[in-house]
Amino acid sequence: MDVVTQLRKFVVPESVALFGIPRYPREGGFNILQHLLSYGYQGRIYPIHPEADEILGVKTYRRVTEVAEHIDLAVINLPRSTVPWVTRDCVEKGISAVIITTQGFADANDMEGHQLQKEIDDIVRGKTRVLGPNTFGTANAFIKFSSSFAELNMERVPVGLICQSGVLYVGSPELRLVGKGIDLGNASDIDFADALEYFEQDSDVRVIALHTEGMRNTRRFLDIAGRVAQKKPIVALKTGRSRIAAQAAQSHTGSFGGRDEIWEVALKQCDIIRVNDIEELSDMVKTFSVLPLMKGRKLAVLSFTGGFGVASIDASEKFGLETAELSPATVERLKELYPPWLAVANPVDIWPAMILSRQPLLRVFRAALEALFSDPAVDAVLCICGISESAVCDRFRQYAERLTRDYPDKPLVWYIYGPLANEARNELEDTGKTQVFSSPDRAIRALAHLADYSQSLGEF
Amino acid sequence: MDVVTQLRKFVVPESVALFGIPRYPREGGFNILQHLLSYGYQGRIYPIHPEADEILGVKTYRRVTEVAEHIDLAVINLPRSTVPWVTRDCVEKGISAVIITTQGFADANDMEGHQLQKEIDDIVRGKTRVLGPNTFGTANAFIKFSSSFAELNMERVPVGLICQSGVLYVGSPELRLVGKGIDLGNASDIDFADALEYFEQDSDVRVIALHTEGMRNTRRFLDIAGRVAQKKPIVALKTGRSRIAAQAAQSHTGSFGGRDEIWEVALKQCDIIRVNDIEELSDMVKTFSVLPLMKGRKLAVLSFTGGFGVASIDASEKFGLETAELSPATVERLKELYPPWLAVANPVDIWPAMILSRQPLLRVFRAALEALFSDPAVDAVLCICGISESAVCDRFRQYAERLTRDYPDKPLVWYIYGPLANEARNELEDTGKTQVFSSPDRAIRALAHLADYSQSLGEF
Repeated sequence: MDVVTQLRKFVVPESVALFGIPRYPREGGFNILQHLLSYGYQGRIYPIHPEADEILGVKTYRRVTEVAEHIDLAVINLPRSTVPWVTRDCVEKGISAVIITTQGFADANDMEGHQLQKEIDDIVRGKTRVLGPNTFGTANAFIKFSSSFAELNMERVPVGLICQSGVLYVGSPELRLVGKGIDLGNASDIDFADALEYFEQDSDVRVIALHTEGMRNTRRFLDIAGRVAQKKPIVALKTGRSRIAAQAAQSHTGSFGGRDEIWEVALKQCDIIRVNDIEELSDMVKTFSVLPLMKGRKLAVLSFTGGFGVASIDASEKFGLETAELSPATVERLKELYPPWLAVANPVDIWPAMILSRQPLLRVFRAALEALFSDPAVDAVLCICGISESAVCDRFRQYAERLTRDYPDKPLVWYIYGPLANEARNELEDTGKTQVFSSPDRAIRALAHLADYSQSLGEF
Repeated sequence: MDVVTQLRKFVVPESVALFGIPRYPREGGFNILQHLLSYGYQGRIYPIHPEADEILGVKTYRRVTEVAEHIDLAVINLPRSTVPWVTRDCVEKGISAVIITTQGFADANDMEGHQLQKEIDDIVRGKTRVLGPNTFGTANAFIKFSSSFAELNMERVPVGLICQSGVLYVGSPELRLVGKGIDLGNASDIDFADALEYFEQDSDVRVIALHTEGMRNTRRFLDIAGRVAQKKPIVALKTGRSRIAAQAAQSHTGSFGGRDEIWEVALKQCDIIRVNDIEELSDMVKTFSVLPLMKGRKLAVLSFTGGFGVASIDASEKFGLETAELSPATVERLKELYPPWLAVANPVDIWPAMILSRQPLLRVFRAALEALFSDPAVDAVLCICGISESAVCDRFRQYAERLTRDYPDKPLVWYIYGPLANEARNELEDTGKTQVFSSPDRAIRALAHLADYSQSLGEF
């Protein structure tokens, strides 16, 4: 079996055996079975329990070998000392995919953990693939499956997450990374390269998000990553930069970090988009899911406030975009909107024009926005606007829908302030064609990553 | 009159004359009078209008000189060509404080703008102080006053904002900077140094937020800032770093930027906390409003996830904090909570202990948190937690209340993920004693600024 076929059992299981399910709902609801039922997972479920006959209404089995039907995947969440014994049962049953969520193997600081890991390695070799130990396992919003004991907020986003930390699975209002997920944990068997190859061929996945603290077979990873990145953007958060952090990573997942400077160069050579923290990871996964690539580095800014126009130039220089020099035709169109004493330049400080014009405010804004989009010297547009009326949210949404349809190759992004900032963000992002950021700087950083990646693909 | 007495007329006016009020509510509600009435401002209001007898139920006057009572402040929002004429009336009436919100003076690219500015300068010299032109003017949540045509979301936070851009006034869900505000606009007369001296003596203001694109009298500013920073933290966002940005700033507010490297050194020498973008400004204003100063650089991290523990070490190195080496007594206390195979170290990966303990999960968490707070080798604690139950928010709030009371000198900060992240943030921040950040990195950056400032005051 090739690795893609093997991993499909983990990510798209048609049947699953569950070890270590509490008989009753538990504090914090950390019950995989309970979650699978509430998600609405449609596959067959076989809870294995030494004493119970049923749990939460599902028939249970004393041993997995008693199950008559074929089983795709086993999820083991038992005390570490019992894991080898249960794994042997799974191998005997012919289960080719086992997730071990339990901690205390290569991540432990005692001999026993390493010993137990070696036992498991010997049991599965050549027969069964292992994900983990010390992992949330897999998640798949498309079939409503997850092996995590935490309840996940999964969405059918076109994102494949490969990680070593459950925090990236759990999500939050700002953190939605999992359309499909593979948490490698200690990566005793299935590794980063395997997971990359899987998402490479998965047509539900258009963006790959990756979190690593380090890995053993870096060369194979980089070979495969370099190939995959030509097809789908890979956004990577590499933690454990410093010596102390690398030590902590060792005790967290048993990973070896390597020097950060080498990572920096290696990731760049593979055209992997490296990000520095969780917010940038979250921004970039969304950016690559939603926006078209930039076809150049020239940014136009349309701002209600001259102050943030100035700040956006700083950010463009910092992150490597250019402040677009507007075409003469665009300057002429804008001049018609402006009071004569106000210089027309990019960033376009549109507020004086709006407030001094005899036209309705938003008509002036829309005319300026269209002028910028139609300018061939502009590769993307950032709008910086204050919103205090619901009606304005609707209008902005209409502009965004029309412009992203008429100019599908130019990213449109926003920074919105004012009392209705959240409402406007929801309206705009609901179009699925434009993105609202929490600061002008973050918008420009995201566009710069788009341009970098686009350039690495030879788009300009 | 000294500058503080002069500025009090701007910030705490007991009476105000308004020029350029639309007779009827206007699109976007850009009507200062309407706003003052809805805020509930208690001072006397004199709208000046050449034709109306009343506007929105308030008696109006044809000229300000017809008003019998003394007037503290005039706010002029008229076409630029009429501003000198009206300003002359204000001087004649004996008004010593005039806000000119109108644009098109030093910020214009024509001669007329500069000419008009000179006229105004000649009219007011020695008699009346001017704030602006091209400004939102002042705001004061404590008396519910603002001269801005935009409706502000003011809160009685202990923050004095000095800026050159209305965007910082308007606010948003993330942006709450104005307890009191002085927007200098073009700063033709009242300048940064004046505003600093005002907030220096204002006991409602414990933190000063400053946004500048550049200024004329840098030396006086730095002299005063160096003095004020010893009493109250000054958090500064300096934009217009690059040559192009400095040009744009010139056309925005007529400011001259100067080289950024010089600003960097000068601000540092004054112990001003320089921030790089709007999010960092927002974080830091809140941090200095809410948290105690750090008495050292040693950070303890208590995390539900080993992955973010590792990331927090990276962030500590990046921003200049130290990963605290826990005292032997603390290590012993933590060991009692841990399975024997798990190494006790900072960052404290508490999840395995919680899940493997026979005690309730939160009792383990609380015990670990108390151990860290009681350790003299720890100067601040960052908690990284996932929350999926309302009951947990309540408990966390209780812990935060007790620990910040028992250890008033140690900042407690959080990064919260999970479905109830926002609810937990509201509960925790409602105590007024702790702060929740949008990422571990931002939490650590804020603590590092606290430590830097504290060290500059000689606290350690």
